[in-house]
Formats: sequence, C-alpha cells, structure tokens
Amino acid sequence: MKKIKLKVPATVANLVCGFDILGMAVHDPYDEMEFRLLETPEIIIKHIDAFGLPEEPSGNVAGIVLLKIQEYFNLKNGFEVIIRKHIKPGSGLGSSAASAAGAAFGANVLLGNKLSKEEMIYFAMFGEELASGVRHADNIAPCIYGGITLVKSTHPIDIVSLNSPDLFVTAVHPQVEVKTSDARQILKKNITLKSAVEQWGNIAGLVAGIQKNDFPLIGRSLNDVIIEPIRSILIPKFDEIKAKSLQLGALGGGISGSGPSIFMLSEQKETAEKIAEMMKSVYTEIEIESFVYVSKINPSGIQIVEEV
Amino acid sequence: MKKIKLKVPATVANLVCGFDILGMAVHDPYDEMEFRLLETPEIIIKHIDAFGLPEEPSGNVAGIVLLKIQEYFNLKNGFEVIIRKHIKPGSGLGSSAASAAGAAFGANVLLGNKLSKEEMIYFAMFGEELASGVRHADNIAPCIYGGITLVKSTHPIDIVSLNSPDLFVTAVHPQVEVKTSDARQILKKNITLKSAVEQWGNIAGLVAGIQKNDFPLIGRSLNDVIIEPIRSILIPKFDEIKAKSLQLGALGGGISGSGPSIFMLSEQKETAEKIAEMMKSVYTEIEIESFVYVSKINPSGIQIVEEV
Repeated sequence: MKKIKLKVPATVANLVCGFDILGMAVHDPYDEMEFRLLETPEIIIKHIDAFGLPEEPSGNVAGIVLLKIQEYFNLKNGFEVIIRKHIKPGSGLGSSAASAAGAAFGANVLLGNKLSKEEMIYFAMFGEELASGVRHADNIAPCIYGGITLVKSTHPIDIVSLNSPDLFVTAVHPQVEVKTSDARQILKKNITLKSAVEQWGNIAGLVAGIQKNDFPLIGRSLNDVIIEPIRSILIPKFDEIKAKSLQLGALGGGISGSGPSIFMLSEQKETAEKIAEMMKSVYTEIEIESFVYVSKINPSGIQIVEEV
Repeated sequence: MKKIKLKVPATVANLVCGFDILGMAVHDPYDEMEFRLLETPEIIIKHIDAFGLPEEPSGNVAGIVLLKIQEYFNLKNGFEVIIRKHIKPGSGLGSSAASAAGAAFGANVLLGNKLSKEEMIYFAMFGEELASGVRHADNIAPCIYGGITLVKSTHPIDIVSLNSPDLFVTAVHPQVEVKTSDARQILKKNITLKSAVEQWGNIAGLVAGIQKNDFPLIGRSLNDVIIEPIRSILIPKFDEIKAKSLQLGALGGGISGSGPSIFMLSEQKETAEKIAEMMKSVYTEIEIESFVYVSKINPSGIQIVEEV
C-alpha cells in the first residue's frame, strides 16, 4: 500500500466529571488526512485549510509524530501528508489530537500495521506535547480506540476502552479564545476531600452507566463539582446553555476539554438538533459567531476511507 | 408469615480506591437473625452472643431501625428479634450494617414486602447513625443489594448495583482496636487535585473492570493514593500483609472499611486460602490474635433461610 485517506474525528475530553481521564469520539467535525509513503526520507506536510498551521515537520503536530516513528524504525522511507483540517484549532474538540492520532494511525497502516494501539498512543502523544506542552492522551485515545476511553495512566500507557452508548452529541464552538494553559492555570491545586468523594461517586456512576447502557444514570452522573464551576466562567453563556439544554431534554453535558466548546448528550436526534438550534441562537443574540455539530458517539474512531 | 430467619452477611466498604462510595458483600462471616411479628407493639431484641451489645430497642442498632419502621407505618404490631452475631463489632466488616440492614429486610418480609430496596436503605441508615454517628450506606447497600454496590448519593438515596465478579475474598481481622471516628479524624480535609485525578482514574478503572469482568484491570485499579497511606499506619503489619498477598497471587486489596480488617481479592480459591494462612501466621508471630475468613463475593446479600 502506497497511499491512504483517513477520516479523523473530533473528540470530547473530560466528559464533565472525568477530568484528565475520560474522552469520547464523535463523527462531526472531522479532519481529512491523506498519506503517501515516499521512497526518500523526507517528511512533507501540506495543510489545505485556512488555519495557518506550521508545515515544517518538527513544528507540525502530525510532522513531529511522523519524525518520531521514522526515527524509531530507522526508516529509509518518508511520508507526504495532506491535511484538510475541519476541527478548528483551539476549539476544545481535539484538533491537535486529530493531527497527532491521524499521523500515528496513517503511518502505521502504510508500514503494515507494525504498531499496537498503545504504541500509536505513545507516538501521538509527542504531537500533543508539541501543541500544548503536555503529553496527555485524553483526546488521542478515543480518536484511536473509538467510543469512550479511560486513560488510566500514560506512564505506562494503560487505556481502557469503554462501551459506546447509542447517544447523540451536540457540540457548540463559540468563537472565543480559551487557552488550554489558562484553563489549566486557574484550577485550584488543592481540593477538599469531601468534593473529591462527590466527584468520584459521579465518575463511578458515569462509568457504570456507560457500561450498563443506563442513560438516566449517565445523566445524573454528568456532574462536575470541581473543574466546571471554575472553568465555566471563561465561557460566555455557559450556565444558560447548560440549563436550556437540560430543559430541552439533554441527559447532561458540560465543557468539552478545556473549552470553549460545550457538548451535550441526548437520547434522541430531535433533542440533539433542538439543542443545536438553541445554542446557535444564544450566541447569535450576543453576537458571538458559533459552529454547531450534531452526531452520534463514534464507536470506531479513525476510519480509512481510501486505500491505494 | 409470622417468623423468618435470615443470614446477614459481612460487607467490605470502600474497596480501596472507592472511599465512601463502594461496598461489597461476602459470605463469611455472617449474622443470624430471627424475626417474629408480634400482635403487641413491643420491640424485643435478644442477643445470643458474647458482645454485650445493648438490648434496649432505642439503643440497639436493629432496634432503632424497627422503631423507625413501626413509627412510619403506624404499626400496631411489634417485633421480636433474636440475633446471633458472628461479625465482630469494630472489625470493619460491617457488623452494625448487618444488624441495621437485617432489621429493615426482616421487617419488610414480615410486613409483606411493602418497602423498596431504597426504602430499606433509608431505614437501615438510622442504625448506622446510632452505631457511628453517620448515616452512611457503604455497608448497608451491598448487604441489601448483594454483590458490589456504588452509593452515588444518600440524599436522595441513589444506589447503583454493579456486577458481582466471580472472585474469592480473604479477610483478616486482627484483634486491635481502630475506632471509626479516629480513622476518619486522621484523614486530611484537603488533598491535591493531582492525587484526586489519580484516584478517580483508579475508581473508573475499578468500576470498568467490575462491569467487564476484567480481573487484571480490577487488580491494577485497586490502588488508593489518598486514604490508605494514612489509615494503614493504624493497622499493624498492613504493608507486609499487602505485599505478601500480592506475592501469593492476590489481584489486590486493602483496608476493609476503616479497618482494622484487611481484605484481598483472588481469582483462585487456593490463592485465597494461602493468603489466609499467611495472614494468620503474620499476626501469630507478633502475638496478635486474628480471625480469617475466605469466601466468594456474595452476589445476593441477605438470604432468607427459613420462613414459617
């Protein structure tokens, strides 16, 4: 195989109470990535989008991952990658993770599936490190495994693949900037044991709900007493959107990753679409441009759409 | 029905990383409780054991639960309860919970199953309040539901019944006193967000492992970075017993409730029995008397052994 084309999905990290451990793949938005194995050792990155991301391999999220893989296998081959990015950088929907996970996944297919999923995670984390300074796997893991994943540990890499409940995801990305580093910095370093216990009751409930397909349990577990009350102040209209979503029938939801995107889970497509409309109109009213996405939870993650 | 006899099992609360939220029923030890519905409104409690527990209903854990039920239903009937307690008070194996849960369960059967499980929990918590000053459900819930339970909330009562993995439990009760109130008081009121995140990764892994019957995942999730390092100093030889249990093949384990009992989970009966021997000999060596118990996780909780 010399050429493949991938659909690399957006991901929602944290899932409200699962700060730094849970993540979920969606179908929409997604990036398109086209890989070609080269006879020469060059790494060529071309972005066909308007985000102005660096194309120099060592400064590009996909590029750095490919360089690490090339180095690890001592490859004589190189890669050409054409990226049509639709997941907006800074959206909180796993834009850098898509580039990083897509690069590891694509290279792996072209090299004849030499890598395990854990090894793909290992290489993709170099991309996350370049993007945010942190080698985390919250977004990479669901991108590669699909569905909902638990990152139990990154040293060593210990990823648990959870069920993929049959639910719809509505996500809104308001055009305001929330830097991951800022979103991390405003968090308190210490929390009360009491609130931690409440949080881990919710996490246990969420994981149980996901595994049992108990949607009401998922709903009443999507409750974050530690991170959301602090981070949500960075996102205009967060409280209003959350309250209105619940009124419209959402099971629950919250900040996607470190924001500014907000996501909501619903059992019915109609509910998810009504929530999308509401989100759009709330931001229109205060003259903030926004993008809304409705899709199911994506059980498969990255998909190969063409192989030549 | 006028008379029933119950087998009311011991329970292991916390399950290492699930402080204040998880609990598990075992088969051994267990209390025997015999209930008789009386035509007169008296509550009569008789203990046929050597623990010297008060038999005055308002000062007895089972008695207070029966009084609350009698009051709630405005009953003209009373109850006579004969308790053969084998779960030692102060063992950390849910001795008071057995009396409380047994009382609610027994009364409910005699009254024609008027109560839901949540309502039994509600009444049984008065017994726990009498015993420890705290209306918690960590031990009551697995006693009534069986298997492993998650107490998501007690106001309102929200109990999630988890799977009951096919595992053996070894428990050792060394004859040293650890007061629940002391065990609670030495805990830190504040913890770092970093350790909380590690803890909830373990809790999520434990719940996922329980639901997926993934025993290695259960094993590597039975890790408590917050409570155990503090509380274990109250239990002689804790570290040695834990280390030796893992060497002998235990999946993992830790403090039962607030101690002093220690429990370990194993896949094989032989492993569980070897661990029991080792535990016994460790305490014999330092001249501390101990009791060891080996049984499977109890999927059913309280059992009716006789109805007349």
